[in-house]
Amino acid sequence: MYPMPVTLLGTLVDGKPDFMTLGWITRVNANPPTIGCGVGRHHHSAVGIEQNKTFSINVPSAEMLQKTDYCGLVSGKSVDKAVLFDVFYGELETAPMITECPLSLECRLETTIENATNNFYIGEIIASYSEERYLSGDLLDIKKINPLLLTMPDNRYWTVGEYAGEAWSIGKTLKMK
Amino acid sequence: MYPMPVTLLGTLVDGKPDFMTLGWITRVNANPPTIGCGVGRHHHSAVGIEQNKTFSINVPSAEMLQKTDYCGLVSGKSVDKAVLFDVFYGELETAPMITECPLSLECRLETTIENATNNFYIGEIIASYSEERYLSGDLLDIKKINPLLLTMPDNRYWTVGEYAGEAWSIGKTLKMK
Repeated sequence: MYPMPVTLLGTLVDGKPDFMTLGWITRVNANPPTIGCGVGRHHHSAVGIEQNKTFSINVPSAEMLQKTDYCGLVSGKSVDKAVLFDVFYGELETAPMITECPLSLECRLETTIENATNNFYIGEIIASYSEERYLSGDLLDIKKINPLLLTMPDNRYWTVGEYAGEAWSIGKTLKMK
Repeated sequence: MYPMPVTLLGTLVDGKPDFMTLGWITRVNANPPTIGCGVGRHHHSAVGIEQNKTFSINVPSAEMLQKTDYCGLVSGKSVDKAVLFDVFYGELETAPMITECPLSLECRLETTIENATNNFYIGEIIASYSEERYLSGDLLDIKKINPLLLTMPDNRYWTVGEYAGEAWSIGKTLKMK
C-alpha cells in the first residue's frame, strides 16, 4: 500500500538464518492475532517458511537503513545476510529475530495462499519482543522506534513525520453535528 | 503493522455507497496486481463486498484527517458517511470512490479468507485513479499526496516525514564489501 512499512522477514533455511526486506505485510485477524505477508514464490525466504512453518517480522529503525536495503538487494541463496545482525530465537526456535530491531514478532504459519507470483503467508503472532527504551508508558513509541516507510514505484524510503491527531477521537466533532 | 497506512474502504451496500477507515491492508500478488484487506466480519463494509464482489481503496490526504477518523467511528448501518465526500464510480460500477482522495484503487474481489474475527478480502486492482497534481514526472509523489499513518494500540495518526534514501540502491555499498 501507500506508503508501506519496511520490515525484515526472518526465516531459517536449511538450518541457517536468513532475512529479507519486506513491505507487503498487514495484520489479518484481530483474535487470535495474525499477520500476513506477500513473498515472491521463488524467494529463499519462501523455502524457509515452508520448511519450518515459522517466520519472524522485525521492524528496523531508520539507523539500520543501509543493512535493511541490502537485505532486499541480495538473495540468501548466495549471501549470508545474518552476519550483519545479532540473531536471537524465541520459543518457536526456528524463527530467527534481530536484536538490533526495536520490535520483533515471532509467528507460527497458519495458512498459505498460493498466488500467481507471490505466496501470501498468514501466521499467528506467538510473541513480540522490544525493549523498555522504545516505550512511553506501557506502549511502543513510534518516535523512539523510528521505523522506515517505502513508496513504489519511485523506490524511496521515508521516515515517520509529525503527530497528526488521535485516532477514534478527532473525528468526533463531526459526529456531534 | 507498524506503522499502518490509513485508507478508506469503499463499498456499495444495498445500493448505497459506504466508506470505512482501514489500516489492515497490503499488496498480495505482483502479477496480476492484487491487494488484500482485513475487515471485521460484522462490519457493514463486509456486507457490501460480499454483495457486489467489488471494493475500492482510497488514500486520503492529511487534510482529510477529521473525515477519515469519523469513518472509523460510526457504522454505515446507522449513518450515511458518503455525504461527506464527492463519490464517483469506475468501470466496475459498484465500487464507490472518493474524488477528494489523491489516490483510489478499484478492485474486483478474487478470494475471501475467513478468519475468526476478520475476513481477509483479496481483490485484483482493475484501475487506479489520481490527478496530475499528485505526480512528479510520471510517478506519484508522496509529499504531494500527504497520506496518513496509524499506530496502535496508542491510536495515533502521523504524517510521512523526511526522505531517507533510495530503495534497492542505498545498501549497495555493503554489497561491495
